Amino acid sequence: MNPLENIRIVLVDPKYAGNIGSVCRVMMNMGITDLAIVAPGEHLDWAEARKLAYKADQMLDGLKTFQTLEEAVADCTVVAGTSARTGLYRDHAYLPREIAPVVLDSAAHHKTALVFGREDKGLFNDEIAVCTHIINIPSSELYRSLNLSHAVMVCCYEIFLLADDSSYQPPQEISSEADGAMRERLYAAWSAMMLETGFCEIEKLDHMMLGLRRIFSRGKLTENDIKILLGLARQSRWVAGELEKAGNKELPA
Amino acid sequence: MNPLENIRIVLVDPKYAGNIGSVCRVMMNMGITDLAIVAPGEHLDWAEARKLAYKADQMLDGLKTFQTLEEAVADCTVVAGTSARTGLYRDHAYLPREIAPVVLDSAAHHKTALVFGREDKGLFNDEIAVCTHIINIPSSELYRSLNLSHAVMVCCYEIFLLADDSSYQPPQEISSEADGAMRERLYAAWSAMMLETGFCEIEKLDHMMLGLRRIFSRGKLTENDIKILLGLARQSRWVAGELEKAGNKELPA
Repeated sequence: MNPLENIRIVLVDPKYAGNIGSVCRVMMNMGITDLAIVAPGEHLDWAEARKLAYKADQMLDGLKTFQTLEEAVADCTVVAGTSARTGLYRDHAYLPREIAPVVLDSAAHHKTALVFGREDKGLFNDEIAVCTHIINIPSSELYRSLNLSHAVMVCCYEIFLLADDSSYQPPQEISSEADGAMRERLYAAWSAMMLETGFCEIEKLDHMMLGLRRIFSRGKLTENDIKILLGLARQSRWVAGELEKAGNKELPA
Repeated sequence: MNPLENIRIVLVDPKYAGNIGSVCRVMMNMGITDLAIVAPGEHLDWAEARKLAYKADQMLDGLKTFQTLEEAVADCTVVAGTSARTGLYRDHAYLPREIAPVVLDSAAHHKTALVFGREDKGLFNDEIAVCTHIINIPSSELYRSLNLSHAVMVCCYEIFLLADDSSYQPPQEISSEADGAMRERLYAAWSAMMLETGFCEIEKLDHMMLGLRRIFSRGKLTENDIKILLGLARQSRWVAGELEKAGNKELPA
């Protein structure tokens, strides 16, 4: 199978339909055809999208739409999101040329997503949290912010070049990588564990979980890894429950 | 001096003003600010260009316009033109990643141009002839043709990355490279020589000159090279003139 067919471009809440059309064209130029839109606004002018898609307008017919990013990437192992900002939870960012082999290695066996945020505000923190990798596209200090379709172009171009490179060999799959849905089950279980064991307070949970997501995203999480981590959470929650039953309602903070 | 400041983006007869605006933004994103338009049509909607340029619209105020490509690149040494087609006079094409060091080495000392043709028909043969190098942007068989601003993006992105790469060292200049105006003087002299010596007939001259332009463009032409080649043409034309005076009007074909 052509790994490019396993790559999904996900646009989160795009503001301008023209950009969606331009993205269709860019994707077809680079041999990628799976497009998903998260939370498409009702104001979007689809005729404009069709105009800008030019001869790639058939891509608009096959478009998938989702209400949340989590749903859009539920079947994806690597989920790489672009961010213009750096800093908290956005460090360990990859350049487009660095993310290309990560994406292509993943796409050799699994659905893989590249995620692009709103034209004005990018991806929100809770969306960044769903990503396993962050991409930072280099640009001039003169003018940092790329148009949406140009950001998609740069990422897809690097992947297309690598896929076309005869020296590139996709990896043999050793263990099954976990997909987005499985990862979210893990994070839900760990959130519960951290609360129930008194490891952290509810106000600090989001902050703590973003950190944990970053840690777990640094390497590949296989289905087996997730089973172990889920088991660990289950056991800790059981212990916390038993302790509570035993009358010690005040857990150490 | 920052070599990016020596790079000129030349758009030949663009059909859509929106594309000019998008190109402005892409250029500023990649730290390049010298934009020239050849033969801008009167139909161009400059308000649309300004809208698409977004926060790079000041580039439209500094825009240079020219009637011909020759004029637009008269002060440029390397002139790299994009072509989607391959074949006659379009072989020896460079990938964007291959042209980046050529452009940047040149821009360390000289004005250097990247030339992009019409959205529908690209560059004509007589415009390709003005280019010293041809760029071929890789794209999918699904859909070969890139939008103008996306083609500019890919080329500028590769150059920006290389300029940003701390391991890149611009070359020391040894001899002065010839610019577009000097090259055109050479080609004019050689055209005259080929006709006057009877080397080729007028109907075949354009074809022959395209081949010669390709040959001379494979390496750098210094000002000294051009002086030698001009001298050679002058001498041959003098010989042909003397022969004609001596009564031998029928030159061998």
